Amino acid sequence: MRQNAGWAVHTPGAPLTPWTFQRRDLRDDDVAVRVEYSGICGSDLHAVRHGDAAAMPLVAGHEMTGTVTAIGTSVTRFQVGDRVAVGNVVDSCGACPACVEHRENWCFAFPTVTYGGVDRVDESMTQGGFASEYVAREAFVYQLPPGLDPAGAAPLLCAGATVFAPLRHWKAGPGTTVGIAGIGGLGHLGVKFAHALGAHVIAFTTSKAKATEALALGADEAILSSDPVQLDAAKWRCDLILDTVGAPHDINGYLRALKLDGTLCTVGIPPQDWHVEPMSLLYGAKRLAGGSGDGTRLVRDMLDFSATHKITAEIELVPATAINSALDRLERGDVRYRFVLDMAR
Amino acid sequence: MRQNAGWAVHTPGAPLTPWTFQRRDLRDDDVAVRVEYSGICGSDLHAVRHGDAAAMPLVAGHEMTGTVTAIGTSVTRFQVGDRVAVGNVVDSCGACPACVEHRENWCFAFPTVTYGGVDRVDESMTQGGFASEYVAREAFVYQLPPGLDPAGAAPLLCAGATVFAPLRHWKAGPGTTVGIAGIGGLGHLGVKFAHALGAHVIAFTTSKAKATEALALGADEAILSSDPVQLDAAKWRCDLILDTVGAPHDINGYLRALKLDGTLCTVGIPPQDWHVEPMSLLYGAKRLAGGSGDGTRLVRDMLDFSATHKITAEIELVPATAINSALDRLERGDVRYRFVLDMAR
Repeated sequence: MRQNAGWAVHTPGAPLTPWTFQRRDLRDDDVAVRVEYSGICGSDLHAVRHGDAAAMPLVAGHEMTGTVTAIGTSVTRFQVGDRVAVGNVVDSCGACPACVEHRENWCFAFPTVTYGGVDRVDESMTQGGFASEYVAREAFVYQLPPGLDPAGAAPLLCAGATVFAPLRHWKAGPGTTVGIAGIGGLGHLGVKFAHALGAHVIAFTTSKAKATEALALGADEAILSSDPVQLDAAKWRCDLILDTVGAPHDINGYLRALKLDGTLCTVGIPPQDWHVEPMSLLYGAKRLAGGSGDGTRLVRDMLDFSATHKITAEIELVPATAINSALDRLERGDVRYRFVLDMAR
Repeated sequence: MRQNAGWAVHTPGAPLTPWTFQRRDLRDDDVAVRVEYSGICGSDLHAVRHGDAAAMPLVAGHEMTGTVTAIGTSVTRFQVGDRVAVGNVVDSCGACPACVEHRENWCFAFPTVTYGGVDRVDESMTQGGFASEYVAREAFVYQLPPGLDPAGAAPLLCAGATVFAPLRHWKAGPGTTVGIAGIGGLGHLGVKFAHALGAHVIAFTTSKAKATEALALGADEAILSSDPVQLDAAKWRCDLILDTVGAPHDINGYLRALKLDGTLCTVGIPPQDWHVEPMSLLYGAKRLAGGSGDGTRLVRDMLDFSATHKITAEIELVPATAINSALDRLERGDVRYRFVLDMAR
């Protein structure tokens, strides 16, 4: 077994503390990655504050970049020294219709998630990327394209894929108008990607400061969604709106901002059910869609697109030792726009 | 003005009674239609039982077939004696993006509905098709294709268009699996159309009798949606489900019955908001869509398709004088599958 140093939560809500734990020895198709940068996602915060006590101690983290330090005997796509990335899914059944299309996030047998999941071979619980190392099947490890800053690239692995997948699926591009609701860790990447894809981008935010910032990130317009007059003036304007808002909120105003056949795609998992006024959907043949990172094919596409268009997340890079203060600030929404841990510090 | 005989409601919930009222004299682009058959839709029931008292006396009815009896001076597409049909929309702004595409049901300025709407020229309130005659702009009158029984065709004008539009839009056809939830006025036509389009059709119903009937209508399978085991076994199976159920119900089981990227399209307007579990949408990148008849282009397409495939509604043809007992039976769900009034009796 491989000795790892990580930051673990031992009871829900407790601070994370240094913890030594073991990872499996490499199987034939495994890659060992020295974790150099690890992004902090809202779902990490949820896991350590409100997660299942029975699954603790838990090492969270599922947005990693680093360097290959060892490979299994049958690994062909990686060599020691490669710059790589690991995201929020690390295995899947490989046989279902979703897996066959390399859309493993939707594996019908449920994918193995990066932490708190159950390894498909030895049935051990997976531990995440707030750690010195990660071990994963090569099929779920990505080459990090040259030219992408590895710290700023870490959040692409979850936040980036989550917004890029629906933008691709719903064909954001020249001639389309794309709304991005919520300008945070997900939304700011949504603005960058939608702009780079050639769409006309409208940022929806409740914050005047973020409205200004969204324009700098590439939005063509910014609308204060807390102002009913501004929101109403957006009626019938968007082909697609990505709703990245994590807090409970009303989505019917965004539905009205869609064109005919327009799509409101919600990403992230809010704590409550969506309440949808039937007429908001019906009048204009609109759709409410669920979106998230799709699988390995999409992540590769997203990383290539990011390299071509020089897109990384806007981050606050902090030492791993500052993980608890970063989590506290994230809980207050006080981050521009994503924390990344420097695991060497 | 033209003297008409109709069946009107004078206060919400009261029986309909014979009522003489006036329609406008023909404008240049108007067509006068002698109403021969008039379908009874769930929305008619709602209008006469729970509609706005201020808009009464009201003549409901928006699924008509009949014969042209007079035409305006600029009418080019119709002649006296033509067999025609009129549906639930009789005018629109003509200039907005929806109207330009002949998707007038979504007119940004709201379409003029067949009854209880406001005429765009003289601002009078429109009165519907439970009447001896209807007068409408020729652009909103349809030639009834030869070979379609005019009584069975009447419900196509609302129920038919409502289910045909999303089947077309979401590309029901060979190689796709289409679920039809609710086997009633809308759903039975959904089964017929989906089958004729070449899809594999699964009927979802809470009634064992209707499950059997759905197979006779063209469904390949029938699933008792009230049985959690059967519903769960349908997981990941459907590309598209049309939800035609009028009563409040849980839609999350249907969402789980969708394939990756599948669509649950709700037609009809239930009294409550939809409650959508975010994970039901997210896990599989699924969509909840609103659907309804789309506009004049779609209705023409639907009528042609119906003629080609010999599709009309399964109806109970009753004399117009039996309108109140038909409404009572419709309220109890006691109809196979749509009432049509014979206006000559």
